[in-house]
Amino acid sequence: MDETIRRRSINEFIQKDPFARHLGAQVEIIGPGHSRVSLTVSDEMTNFHGTTHGAVIFALSDMAFAAASNSHGQTAVALNVGINFLKVSRSGDRLVAEAKEEFAGGRTALYSITVRDEQTGDLVAKSQDLVYRKNDWFVKKER
Amino acid sequence: MDETIRRRSINEFIQKDPFARHLGAQVEIIGPGHSRVSLTVSDEMTNFHGTTHGAVIFALSDMAFAAASNSHGQTAVALNVGINFLKVSRSGDRLVAEAKEEFAGGRTALYSITVRDEQTGDLVAKSQDLVYRKNDWFVKKER
Amino acid sequence: MDETIRRRSINEFIQKDPFARHLGAQVEIIGPGHSRVSLTVSDEMTNFHGTTHGAVIFALSDMAFAAASNSHGQTAVALNVGINFLKVSRSGDRLVAEAKEEFAGGRTALYSITVRDEQTGDLVAKSQDLVYRKNDWFVKKER
Amino acid sequence: MDETIRRRSINEFIQKDPFARHLGAQVEIIGPGHSRVSLTVSDEMTNFHGTTHGAVIFALSDMAFAAASNSHGQTAVALNVGINFLKVSRSGDRLVAEAKEEFAGGRTALYSITVRDEQTGDLVAKSQDLVYRKNDWFVKKER
Repeated sequence: MDETIRRRSINEFIQKDPFARHLGAQVEIIGPGHSRVSLTVSDEMTNFHGTTHGAVIFALSDMAFAAASNSHGQTAVALNVGINFLKVSRSGDRLVAEAKEEFAGGRTALYSITVRDEQTGDLVAKSQDLVYRKNDWFVKKER
Repeated sequence: MDETIRRRSINEFIQKDPFARHLGAQVEIIGPGHSRVSLTVSDEMTNFHGTTHGAVIFALSDMAFAAASNSHGQTAVALNVGINFLKVSRSGDRLVAEAKEEFAGGRTALYSITVRDEQTGDLVAKSQDLVYRKNDWFVKKER
Repeated sequence: MDETIRRRSINEFIQKDPFARHLGAQVEIIGPGHSRVSLTVSDEMTNFHGTTHGAVIFALSDMAFAAASNSHGQTAVALNVGINFLKVSRSGDRLVAEAKEEFAGGRTALYSITVRDEQTGDLVAKSQDLVYRKNDWFVKKER
Repeated sequence: MDETIRRRSINEFIQKDPFARHLGAQVEIIGPGHSRVSLTVSDEMTNFHGTTHGAVIFALSDMAFAAASNSHGQTAVALNVGINFLKVSRSGDRLVAEAKEEFAGGRTALYSITVRDEQTGDLVAKSQDLVYRKNDWFVKKER
């Protein structure tokens, strides 16, 4: 398969994430193992303390992780996520997650993800995420 | 304040979580440092592989964590979450998260959370979560 | 192979851990997926703040993890460890780690480990650890 | 206090780590929030599978973390470490850990640590580590 068509097929597959669409998150594959996801926090995405819900910050980070780890066309499933919450954000804030592949071995691969406030650039959360790579390619492997 | 009234005030505060309501999650404080959250996975809560989105499993775990760690009436904010994803689940499955306090020191406290398939009892995810406890009581402290 | 002989072979294999011997740690397999490791903290096991070194607390936890995850005779290698340090300890203290299998799937398995002060029973650290299980049995598999 | 003298005092304090000396690790503060630690793996630093013990890889990472997080002269204690083990190494290999400060807030700070094989540059482990910063300066604070 032509590499440009391959890239496009992978991208279309990843864009179909129902939960990303439900939250209104924009998912973008920048290159192999590299992605960006952005989202504007709405009132219903807050917690009982009135700040952005940890699960929403995680969702952003997780969607960037999923896009980056599946960006090769090989099915990758999350094994472990370690996330640190660093700064409070609020409804109306626009958050951007960026994921980068740090390591890709035989069966596993590791990603670093930052979540930042788009306006200030402040670090909101940082995570380190591990996948298991299955013997299954949702878009045919490069030969 | 009477302890029964205190418990009820804390519970009412925690029930107001907008994101839990948005996802349709039922949050229940079982006792101090102990909570349970349940949710039925819907189609929009899935990922591009067609299984329950990791961010939804995390959300369940995180809501149990937040309920348990704030169950004393003292404001607790998440510092770190380490989560392991163990078993795939799907739209229509009912998932139950249970959080238990493992340690409560001066400024920090630690929680263990399990997420299970309600029907089979299978472990879907397990996490270990750390909070920072602020000098702020949203429901007045016991004397 | 007779199950008693099998258990003994696995135990002998695990006892040969050079770093556990070097630190003077006692490793004990209690049953499949369950182990205990103990150690007395010496002066050289402290850090520049004069308390037990985090790497020594981790070592105890890790040795319990390794014993539990290899207790079936199948080679298990650590993928991820998430550890929370909860209480300071000092030279002269006796610490005990206990590991329990929480989940064992196809290629991965998850363990919970506690490290306690043997005398007071206080929780010193808690970790949640993930292994990858190789297609390799160092003591022949049960049929 | 003169900044050069201050830096020297902090460095002397950190060099006194008994467990780092016991393992023969070289600890170097490169700058505020930045450190490097190196070690040659010896036979007694291996596990029962004959490879470098996970606790030794952790020790290297942890010593870099401790040096970086205490490099400001303020007492920092480890709260959480999430470490991923990526590549096997062996006795005779020289490993190098490097820690960098990713975030420093009021009471907490976060560090990224890589452990690499010095000769090949291969990533052996990667961790993300959180400290609590106490109201205690072991070398007087800059004014």
